[in-house]
Amino acid sequence: MEFRVLGRDALTNARRGELITSRGAVLTPVFMPVATRAAVRALGIRDIREIGFDIILSNTYHLYMRPGVGVLKKAGGLHRFMSYDRPILTDSGGFQVFSLSSLRKLYDHGVEFRSHIDGSRHLFTPRTVLDIQRVIGSDIMMVLDHCAEYPVPEEEARSAVERTVDWARESYDYWRAGFDTEKQALFAIVQGSVYGGLRVECAERLCEMDFPGFAVGGLSVGEPKELYREMTAVTLARLPDNKPRYMMGVGSPLEILDAIECGVDMFDCVMPTRIARNGTLYTSEGRLNIKAARYEDDFAPLDPLCSCYVCKNFSRAYLRHIYRAGEIAALIYNTYHNLYFMKNFMDEIQSSIGSGGFPETARKWRAAFNRS
Amino acid sequence: MEFRVLGRDALTNARRGELITSRGAVLTPVFMPVATRAAVRALGIRDIREIGFDIILSNTYHLYMRPGVGVLKKAGGLHRFMSYDRPILTDSGGFQVFSLSSLRKLYDHGVEFRSHIDGSRHLFTPRTVLDIQRVIGSDIMMVLDHCAEYPVPEEEARSAVERTVDWARESYDYWRAGFDTEKQALFAIVQGSVYGGLRVECAERLCEMDFPGFAVGGLSVGEPKELYREMTAVTLARLPDNKPRYMMGVGSPLEILDAIECGVDMFDCVMPTRIARNGTLYTSEGRLNIKAARYEDDFAPLDPLCSCYVCKNFSRAYLRHIYRAGEIAALIYNTYHNLYFMKNFMDEIQSSIGSGGFPETARKWRAAFNRS
Repeated sequence: MEFRVLGRDALTNARRGELITSRGAVLTPVFMPVATRAAVRALGIRDIREIGFDIILSNTYHLYMRPGVGVLKKAGGLHRFMSYDRPILTDSGGFQVFSLSSLRKLYDHGVEFRSHIDGSRHLFTPRTVLDIQRVIGSDIMMVLDHCAEYPVPEEEARSAVERTVDWARESYDYWRAGFDTEKQALFAIVQGSVYGGLRVECAERLCEMDFPGFAVGGLSVGEPKELYREMTAVTLARLPDNKPRYMMGVGSPLEILDAIECGVDMFDCVMPTRIARNGTLYTSEGRLNIKAARYEDDFAPLDPLCSCYVCKNFSRAYLRHIYRAGEIAALIYNTYHNLYFMKNFMDEIQSSIGSGGFPETARKWRAAFNRS
Repeated sequence: MEFRVLGRDALTNARRGELITSRGAVLTPVFMPVATRAAVRALGIRDIREIGFDIILSNTYHLYMRPGVGVLKKAGGLHRFMSYDRPILTDSGGFQVFSLSSLRKLYDHGVEFRSHIDGSRHLFTPRTVLDIQRVIGSDIMMVLDHCAEYPVPEEEARSAVERTVDWARESYDYWRAGFDTEKQALFAIVQGSVYGGLRVECAERLCEMDFPGFAVGGLSVGEPKELYREMTAVTLARLPDNKPRYMMGVGSPLEILDAIECGVDMFDCVMPTRIARNGTLYTSEGRLNIKAARYEDDFAPLDPLCSCYVCKNFSRAYLRHIYRAGEIAALIYNTYHNLYFMKNFMDEIQSSIGSGGFPETARKWRAAFNRS
C-alpha cells in the first residue's frame, strides 16, 4: 500500500491524498460505508459501487462469529464471499469485544469473552485477530487494541494505553514476519481516552514502529465536543505526515469536518445508514425528518440539490408515505440517499482542498448542519 | 385497451396474447408483481423494471387508507407518485374490505367498514371505488365485488353472486358514462365460491355486459386442489375468448400452470415476495430453503440455471449467511431472485404456447415443483 498527499489547505491541516492498494486507488479524505456482517445495511452491494465508493469497512468480530473463519476460508475470502472486488478495511474486533460481548477477562496476552450471539467462549489475541483478517483477506487490517469505556479514570486509561502499545508491537512483528505486507496493510490505533498526555504518549510510542497507517480510536464515544476536537488535534499532531490517518467510527458531517481540519484522511460510521432507517436524511440544508407531517403533500425531492437516483425519482410525499407504511423500500431509498450524500460531501471536500476552496466548503456545511 | 390472442396450445386451452394499453403492451400469460402500498415489498421500483415486468398491481383499499385520495390527486396519480410509467392494475378493495377490515355492514348500495389501521368508518360503493381508481389513474380498474369467505353455504354464496352482479352492472354503467374508457379499462369479477352452477351463472350474467376483461375471484382461498381446478375450468369455459382473463391472487407455479391450461392470461400474487422474505426461493428444481444448514458452505449459486443478478453474483453460502444475520440485503436479494424466477417462468410459458412446446414446458415445471 502506498499513500501520497496530493494537496493541502493553507489555513488548516486538511489535506487530500491518494491511497493505493492492490485492489485499486482511494482518494482521501474518504468515507467508508460499513458492511458489518458482509452486507451494508438495507442496500445491495451494487448500489455501493453505483454511488461510487472505493473502499468499505467490515468487522472481524462479527465475521468471526458468523459465518465463521471456516466458511470465509472456503469462500476464498470476504471479497469473493460478498462479490466486491475493491479494497476492504476490517476492524480488529477489539472495539466489539469491549462494547458487545459479555464476561470479558483481560490478560496480558489477549482478551477472553463470551459471544453476544450464543454465549460461547472465545479468546482474541494480537495474533489471532490478524490470523482471522488474513483469512478475510482485508486490504487494510487493524491491530487488536484496548478501547476503554468513556468516562474512565486516568489510571485505567493509562493501562489501556500500555496494553494497546504492547499488543501493537506484537502485531507489528507478527505481521512483518508472516504476511504479504504489500497486499495486507496494518494500521495501529491510538488510544488514551480524553487525556492529552496519554494520547501523545500512545501516538509517539506507536510511531516508533513503521506501520503503514495510524488510526485514532476511542473518540466520539460520548465526550463533549470540545474534548473531541482537542483530542483529535493533539493526537493528529503526533502522527507522521506521510502516512494515512483514520478516525474510527466517526461520524456526523460536523465531526468529520473538525477531524479533516486536523489532518484526518479516513472515516467510517454507521450513522448515515442507521439514521436513514430511522427516517432522518442528510440534505444540503442539514437534517430532514421524512416522518414529519409537513411532507405529506410535499412533492419536491428530498434535496433539490442532490442528483442521486432517489432524489431524481421520488418526492418527499412518496418517501414519507412508504416510510409510514413500513415498506422496506423506504429503508432502501433512505439509505441510498444518505450514503450518496456522504460520498458527495467527501468529494466536495476533496476537490476543495488545495484549490483554496476548503474554508468556504467547510463554512457552507457547518452552516447547514448547525442550523438543522 | 386492446387484446389479441397470438397463439394457442393444441391440447389445452392455454393461449398467449398481447394486451395493449395506453402505457404500453403486455405479453400474456403475465405475472404482475404486487405493490400493495405503492411499493413492491423489499425491492426498489427500478429493480422491477430491470427484471422486465411490464405491468404491476396495486391495491385501492390500501392506497385509499394511506396516503389517501387527496395526496394521490395532488401527486397526479399513482404512476407519478411511485415513479413508474408502465401499466398498473388496481384491485377494487372489495377483497380487502372482506378480509382485512372489521365491523362490516353490507347494504345493497355498498359496504361499510372500519379501517384496519385506525378503526375509522368508511363506505365503499361500486361508484366510490371507481372514483378512487380514477384518481389513482389505474390502467386497469376492477369492479367492487363481494368475495365470500371459504367455506360458505351455497345460499350465502348465491347472495354474494347476486350482489356482485348488481354491483358490476352499476359499475359498468358508471364507467361507460363518465370515464375515459380507452385509458382506464374495467374488469368484472366472477364469484360463486366452489359451486359450479353459481360460477356459471355469475359468468354468464357478467358477460352480458361488454367489459374489456374478466377476472376470477374467490379461488385459491383454501379449497382443495381438485375444486380449484374444477372451478377454474368451469368459469373459464364461460368467459369470452376475445377478452383477457385474470385469476386474482394466484399463485404458486403449479396453480398458475393449471389456470393457464384453462385459458387464464393474467396473474398476481404476493407469494413469491412473501416466501422470499421467509427464506424460500424458487429454482429450476423447485423450492429451496436458504436457511438450511447444508448451504452453510455451498458456494454454488441459488439456481445454476438462473441468470439473475443475484445468481450471477452470490452463493448459497453468502445468501444463507446474510439471511441468518438478519440483513435487509437478504430480503432484497431473495425477493429479486423470486420475482426474476416468476418473470422467466412466464416468459418460458409464453414462448412455448403456439410453438408446440407448451406440454413439455408444463411437464418440466410440474416435475420440479411436485418434487420439492
